[in-house]
Amino acid sequence: MIIVIQCKDQVGLVGSIATILAKHQLNIVSMREHVDKAENIFFVRLEIEDGDTGGLEETLKEVLPPGAIIAVNPNPHKKIVVMVTKEYHCLADILIRNYFKTLGATVQCVIGNHATLQDICERFDMPFYHLSHEQYGRKELEQQMGDVIQQYAPDYIVLAKFMRILSPAFVARFPMRIINIHHSFLPAFIGANPYKQAFERGVKLIGATAHFVSNELDEGPIIAQQIIPVNHSFTAATMVKAGQEIETAVLANALKLVIEDRVFVYGNKTVVFG
Amino acid sequence: MIIVIQCKDQVGLVGSIATILAKHQLNIVSMREHVDKAENIFFVRLEIEDGDTGGLEETLKEVLPPGAIIAVNPNPHKKIVVMVTKEYHCLADILIRNYFKTLGATVQCVIGNHATLQDICERFDMPFYHLSHEQYGRKELEQQMGDVIQQYAPDYIVLAKFMRILSPAFVARFPMRIINIHHSFLPAFIGANPYKQAFERGVKLIGATAHFVSNELDEGPIIAQQIIPVNHSFTAATMVKAGQEIETAVLANALKLVIEDRVFVYGNKTVVFG
Amino acid sequence: MIIVIQCKDQVGLVGSIATILAKHQLNIVSMREHVDKAENIFFVRLEIEDGDTGGLEETLKEVLPPGAIIAVNPNPHKKIVVMVTKEYHCLADILIRNYFKTLGATVQCVIGNHATLQDICERFDMPFYHLSHEQYGRKELEQQMGDVIQQYAPDYIVLAKFMRILSPAFVARFPMRIINIHHSFLPAFIGANPYKQAFERGVKLIGATAHFVSNELDEGPIIAQQIIPVNHSFTAATMVKAGQEIETAVLANALKLVIEDRVFVYGNKTVVFG
Amino acid sequence: MIIVIQCKDQVGLVGSIATILAKHQLNIVSMREHVDKAENIFFVRLEIEDGDTGGLEETLKEVLPPGAIIAVNPNPHKKIVVMVTKEYHCLADILIRNYFKTLGATVQCVIGNHATLQDICERFDMPFYHLSHEQYGRKELEQQMGDVIQQYAPDYIVLAKFMRILSPAFVARFPMRIINIHHSFLPAFIGANPYKQAFERGVKLIGATAHFVSNELDEGPIIAQQIIPVNHSFTAATMVKAGQEIETAVLANALKLVIEDRVFVYGNKTVVFG
Repeated sequence: MIIVIQCKDQVGLVGSIATILAKHQLNIVSMREHVDKAENIFFVRLEIEDGDTGGLEETLKEVLPPGAIIAVNPNPHKKIVVMVTKEYHCLADILIRNYFKTLGATVQCVIGNHATLQDICERFDMPFYHLSHEQYGRKELEQQMGDVIQQYAPDYIVLAKFMRILSPAFVARFPMRIINIHHSFLPAFIGANPYKQAFERGVKLIGATAHFVSNELDEGPIIAQQIIPVNHSFTAATMVKAGQEIETAVLANALKLVIEDRVFVYGNKTVVFG
Repeated sequence: MIIVIQCKDQVGLVGSIATILAKHQLNIVSMREHVDKAENIFFVRLEIEDGDTGGLEETLKEVLPPGAIIAVNPNPHKKIVVMVTKEYHCLADILIRNYFKTLGATVQCVIGNHATLQDICERFDMPFYHLSHEQYGRKELEQQMGDVIQQYAPDYIVLAKFMRILSPAFVARFPMRIINIHHSFLPAFIGANPYKQAFERGVKLIGATAHFVSNELDEGPIIAQQIIPVNHSFTAATMVKAGQEIETAVLANALKLVIEDRVFVYGNKTVVFG
Repeated sequence: MIIVIQCKDQVGLVGSIATILAKHQLNIVSMREHVDKAENIFFVRLEIEDGDTGGLEETLKEVLPPGAIIAVNPNPHKKIVVMVTKEYHCLADILIRNYFKTLGATVQCVIGNHATLQDICERFDMPFYHLSHEQYGRKELEQQMGDVIQQYAPDYIVLAKFMRILSPAFVARFPMRIINIHHSFLPAFIGANPYKQAFERGVKLIGATAHFVSNELDEGPIIAQQIIPVNHSFTAATMVKAGQEIETAVLANALKLVIEDRVFVYGNKTVVFG
Repeated sequence: MIIVIQCKDQVGLVGSIATILAKHQLNIVSMREHVDKAENIFFVRLEIEDGDTGGLEETLKEVLPPGAIIAVNPNPHKKIVVMVTKEYHCLADILIRNYFKTLGATVQCVIGNHATLQDICERFDMPFYHLSHEQYGRKELEQQMGDVIQQYAPDYIVLAKFMRILSPAFVARFPMRIINIHHSFLPAFIGANPYKQAFERGVKLIGATAHFVSNELDEGPIIAQQIIPVNHSFTAATMVKAGQEIETAVLANALKLVIEDRVFVYGNKTVVFG
């Protein structure tokens, strides 16, 4: 079972927390702890053997500084909604893991602004909502999408190569719950056609970045990043192909980290107990 | 300041330890903890802000299971002795870090069974002992080497491409204090000419392994490993060159980990809080 | 269009080949060439712009040493058969690429010695043959499997986590056309339970190896290998999970290389123009 | 022996070149070739067995398009000058390789705008010129540096953590012969304090880039790049330390590639036959 705590730092926090766990006869399997000295914030993730956690959260509150964020056994049955456009690679990887129950969460539905990926969803009996910007104006489209999402009350919304920029209004509706895979090693090549930019710059590495969506384009706290080597023999097209492999891997890894409650967000940064 | 503890696991250890630290007004900067469930062994590495640690070790002993290994601020001025044969790459890297005081420990002397590397040592005013197997029989040679080492009372003996197998008697004289860089991704290609073996096998990766020396050839607890890709265009000779780069990096990394007290040894394994 | 040639080396080969291509007004887009000096074998892979290749193979034969292996535009529509047991990760990755036509070849059918993966195949309208060792003795089972395979005349048979050892007789039926993903960085941890072996040895890296199947267990020419870092926090079980990710990636990469005619086999080695 | 050619692409180039080599009884050991389709430029690097190359360059000129750049056995005894400020890691690595004759070129002298690294140079009997911006104005300083460099007529000038921006006038004096190591994964974090930028952005990877110096800050054709993973436990300071390791490795690799005539420059890009 997992316990995560984020609060103002002070001397003795670990002791108080661990002592309370011991009093509850809860054995610590593993513990990851970090203090951001500059911000004076304390982060801890505990994995404990199953036991009676009745009243634990309250007891912890008593010893922790005011405003402490405490989650005892945070939702172990997380739900996600996936948003896509036309590229299949990230969605297919998620559908497969969902189907074989190795995702750690359950996919509720997929929303596409194109119909391209409807068939693959149906093959997995996955509800697919085709909400097109040809059908609706941007404002109404986002309203529709938001309403579909809300009815599933997902823990996270995953932009699995959703290629339209979402408005601040939409993002504000699901704060720090939208996860995006950006097809570049941020902060390099922000914006459109990063592979074209990378190709023209003649870089020797390309990468991908999974991050929470904030309201600045391709900003927001970074969860995971990876790269692969490229060279002159790559065209912009083969860079895209290679990039898709790494995008799939990075998003899969980021989802695993988030779903396992290993990611803490504060300011524009994350603490990730990988 | 660092505190490392290794002991039998039991409920409440983290709490007892952290509470004692709090009582001593010692603030935990970071904490890494691990429990080997199979062996029921508890490992913790604490980094604490400087403070008065008078009596801390004793107080800890009282709450920890019998046989607990406790080190409060383990030797912060570690000393090492380096043993070499003819290849320069690992030694030179160590001498440079030592000279610029970024090694984290101080090199006391270098022992070579060939004179090849004497000049580079002298350029850094580093004592070099040439103890040759042409000069002495194996038993006497190891006696001599052991005596030179002992007079410097080093924390660790680093085999920086020392190409002779040391006898159990020698190893027993410095248990779990001899660190070797093996020019292969162990356990593949144990023994001599691993690059030749790798070349003939047509592998696509070669690696290097830094490990403590036990009495089985190329066995002993592994500290760090890395690999690099190779292909058909490599000859056995260019594989050696490429391998030397990775050997240097792996040994440097392993020494950093050991010197910073991040490595725990038990049985034939390590816990490394990297 | 691709041209691959493998033959005895001699002075002027590249010139003769390139001159003939020029005579045919065939423009070289890219060329990768290698000579194994020890074995005196010449390998070349040419990518040329489309054009009239009538009579090209014959003209090339005239200038090349006897016994030259020449393939002009080798089967651009390759077919593969996949064999599986219970693990889904490699198969699902292949089915997805096949469905979205990014595999570069077409999967003809899947043969499983368990029924576990029948449903996922059916979701992709992929013929699935359940041929069980409970149903048949080993000899008859392999006969049946070989017959199913033969009726599809595949270019390659892919063992996507097929967990039974195939007899020399079966392997001889499809020489150097069977590709296996081995869940280890060969030659380390040959045989069963490599992750258990890796865990007990306390390695800091685990890997996967894609190779052609010869008749020695886990031997055969290596096509591709990759690794990922692991540490003490991994259990044998989480090592398996991590390993499955790398197995999927390595097999996908190996298939890409083979399907794009980038892999030459000779002796127990490969030349891979990646 | 090496032959490199860069010229306008046309049908039959490889054939003409290889045929001429065969006529000269020069056997091709390995050949790497690339065509930039967009720019219609042909690049080839040939490694041939030693033989009589008398008149070869002229014969090649006859069959190659006008303006072809041909180098038969380009300077096999390359000379470099190193410029530094205070950080030792790249310089020390170069001095060691130079001392052990594994650099592939010889270091002529080191120029420092601080005296910090004078002692390490003297330990290797390496001429060190301390030319300080306190001593001279920028224009005069660059004049002095340029004159020192010119008297050694180096093939390349290596900025091994030289922390001042060089004027267009200086760069123009040594076009595409100045190699810089930038402490970032370009184009991310251009300019000063990239590690501080990286730390504040909370990236999960940091990198280094070796590139030729053009007149835009941190632009210029990229030769090599590498990254290492980082996380929340890194401070800006430990990121610098980690970055120095990767800077050293990337610069060493870039120098190897350039010295072995594996790097072609055109426009703001490179072709690297690694």
